[in-house]
Amino acid sequence: MLIVQKYGGTSVANDECIMRAAGRITESFSKGNKLVVVLSAQGVLTDALIRKARRLNPNAGPREMDMLLSTGEQQSAALMAMAIHKLGFPAISLTAGQVGIQASTNYGNARIKNIATSRLNLELERNNIVLVAGFQGINRYGDITTLGRGASDTTAVAIAAKLNADLCEIYTDVDGVYTADPNIITNAIKLREISYEEMLELASAGTQVLHNRSVEMAKRYRVNLVVRSSMTAAEGTTVKEGVRLVEKLHVSGVAADDKIARISLVGVTDKPGMAFHIFSLLAKGNVPVDLILQPVSYNGIKDVTFTVNKADLQRSLDIMRANQPSIGYRDLTWAADVAKITIVGAGMASNPGVASMMFESLYDCGVNINMISTSEIKISVLVDRVHMEKALSAVHDKFIESQRDFFVKVVE
Amino acid sequence: MLIVQKYGGTSVANDECIMRAAGRITESFSKGNKLVVVLSAQGVLTDALIRKARRLNPNAGPREMDMLLSTGEQQSAALMAMAIHKLGFPAISLTAGQVGIQASTNYGNARIKNIATSRLNLELERNNIVLVAGFQGINRYGDITTLGRGASDTTAVAIAAKLNADLCEIYTDVDGVYTADPNIITNAIKLREISYEEMLELASAGTQVLHNRSVEMAKRYRVNLVVRSSMTAAEGTTVKEGVRLVEKLHVSGVAADDKIARISLVGVTDKPGMAFHIFSLLAKGNVPVDLILQPVSYNGIKDVTFTVNKADLQRSLDIMRANQPSIGYRDLTWAADVAKITIVGAGMASNPGVASMMFESLYDCGVNINMISTSEIKISVLVDRVHMEKALSAVHDKFIESQRDFFVKVVE
Repeated sequence: MLIVQKYGGTSVANDECIMRAAGRITESFSKGNKLVVVLSAQGVLTDALIRKARRLNPNAGPREMDMLLSTGEQQSAALMAMAIHKLGFPAISLTAGQVGIQASTNYGNARIKNIATSRLNLELERNNIVLVAGFQGINRYGDITTLGRGASDTTAVAIAAKLNADLCEIYTDVDGVYTADPNIITNAIKLREISYEEMLELASAGTQVLHNRSVEMAKRYRVNLVVRSSMTAAEGTTVKEGVRLVEKLHVSGVAADDKIARISLVGVTDKPGMAFHIFSLLAKGNVPVDLILQPVSYNGIKDVTFTVNKADLQRSLDIMRANQPSIGYRDLTWAADVAKITIVGAGMASNPGVASMMFESLYDCGVNINMISTSEIKISVLVDRVHMEKALSAVHDKFIESQRDFFVKVVE
Repeated sequence: MLIVQKYGGTSVANDECIMRAAGRITESFSKGNKLVVVLSAQGVLTDALIRKARRLNPNAGPREMDMLLSTGEQQSAALMAMAIHKLGFPAISLTAGQVGIQASTNYGNARIKNIATSRLNLELERNNIVLVAGFQGINRYGDITTLGRGASDTTAVAIAAKLNADLCEIYTDVDGVYTADPNIITNAIKLREISYEEMLELASAGTQVLHNRSVEMAKRYRVNLVVRSSMTAAEGTTVKEGVRLVEKLHVSGVAADDKIARISLVGVTDKPGMAFHIFSLLAKGNVPVDLILQPVSYNGIKDVTFTVNKADLQRSLDIMRANQPSIGYRDLTWAADVAKITIVGAGMASNPGVASMMFESLYDCGVNINMISTSEIKISVLVDRVHMEKALSAVHDKFIESQRDFFVKVVE
């Protein structure tokens, strides 16, 4: 089998972790598999480099930041090669430039455009375990761009897709995908399988297990994806097409996200193209928008509310203020102390009543809902940050814990 | 003017050093100069990375070591760009790969073969201060090779030569070239000028101020070289062709080196090509040989003595033992507790008696000479390590201190 593995920052955090990962890699190699392994930077190294940069220049530009940060993954790849050599196996480390991972010029948040296969195939033919620095690409100017925090997952999935690998294994510090964050909901249940769509909604909803672009890409190219722990031998969670389990469940996971902020434009004159105007201004400013709420207008006036990453709040407000004349809103309000609670389930669309069950569970525990947004397989609500844990717990109890016997039977 | 500057590890060791160097760079840029700046890794970072690698694999291979170590210079280049941006000036950092510094495949000790100028010239035309990661090149496989410890000097001189720069300034933690190591000889005198040849002999003799390949290259391409401190405004030492000062002096500097070891092959049969055989074996084993002593043979039998870096002693002995049959020596002896004392001066050749003055000064302080080697402009002697400081001091007194008035008058 051709397998692409990815080891996250906690899986290579120190000598012991590196040697443990090297053991896993060479064990798989010994079974006759061909291996491409994508590495993240060691533990807290990326944060340390960011702090170092900010001390010198709080507004350090993204091109130079990418030049700096990409060294972390390069170091991990080289160190892993040394560890594998120590175990007596052949290995070679490659930077994104050496592999030929072509990316867009959007420094700090670039996208992979193509991956050259010649060097990868050459090293695989030489029977090398190929270690690739994750998180980075080379743009058309030959400069290093990074793909966003957590994007080593995306590097791995993209390589798996391009090489048509049999399997893509994401090794991380959790042993799979749970029905909710086990750090908050202690009785959350580990899922054995989940569909691409559900995983995508969970990733967008604040679950940190997989980088959401990696799931998008896995879905598009039908990459066989497994999430598992590098610390234990536990089975992990398989992310794939059409999963039997979820057909029978209304909700397969709940998630919470408090890294967001709400912005409302009050009293916008309702004319065609206004929404396009507002959100294209944000897109030009490189601000990703999450939830959008725009009720029917009243007397030709309406309010437009949306959420952005908390880190983008100030920039978003600046953009809105600078364009007040062309948008023509009456008032600008915002809140940073909010959280988003999301429930995800492929069976949701065919099961009416799921939304009202969710709202009921929140009402029962006294949590007010600020904003609601739904899709085919998820429902998100915005609540005050102070209620996040309580709301998550109530929703998990309602949909998952109440069916624990069923879940545990199917899952384990 | 087009100026190439180089900042060593101590000159970028922390935030304060980086900002100070950024101040110097932008000051020169403000005067209308075009600048290419070569950076070393921060302070002790390279040593820390080496320790990290050795913990994982004491025999870490040189290709992966280069992949790891080259990140240090890349980080320095990016951090310096951020610091310069902070001061409000334009700058861009480039890796050796982005510049196109082509090097040999000899990992860990590669040589620069060529430097592409298109990206450098493009960025200079864009009015950028161009920051280049030192110490590294790209070989014909597209892999990163490093140029040997201290070789960022060589990167700077090579770029200066290729771009035909007006000046190459090497910023380091000493404020110039002294008549002897000021850490040992406290009354050593700083030279205002020194010739390429003398600097080369001093660099080979153990003076750490400049990487010796950088001096070779500066001499070959007539690069106008200045060594100065990044901490002070002191003038520094100019290294250049035909220097007035040294014509009048017998000796312009003395140096000591205890990082060497002596090996003797006793009782070698004297036949044609024997020396070639011995030293080509060492060259194949990638062992640089320093002094070589081979007296006239006696009854067709002779002894061959040479010195190598202490780090290469064991490997050299292994090579000699493995080839005992083909060399045919009777005995192999060695000593690691030795030191080399060297005096350098362009006026030496035309001043007979310099050698005997040196031997006299050593005799006077009771130091026995194990081995002597001379060239046009230098004399090296091998002494027991225990006598190194005493010998250096005696020689410095004899040639420099005795003429202090003359030196100080000419130099300051």
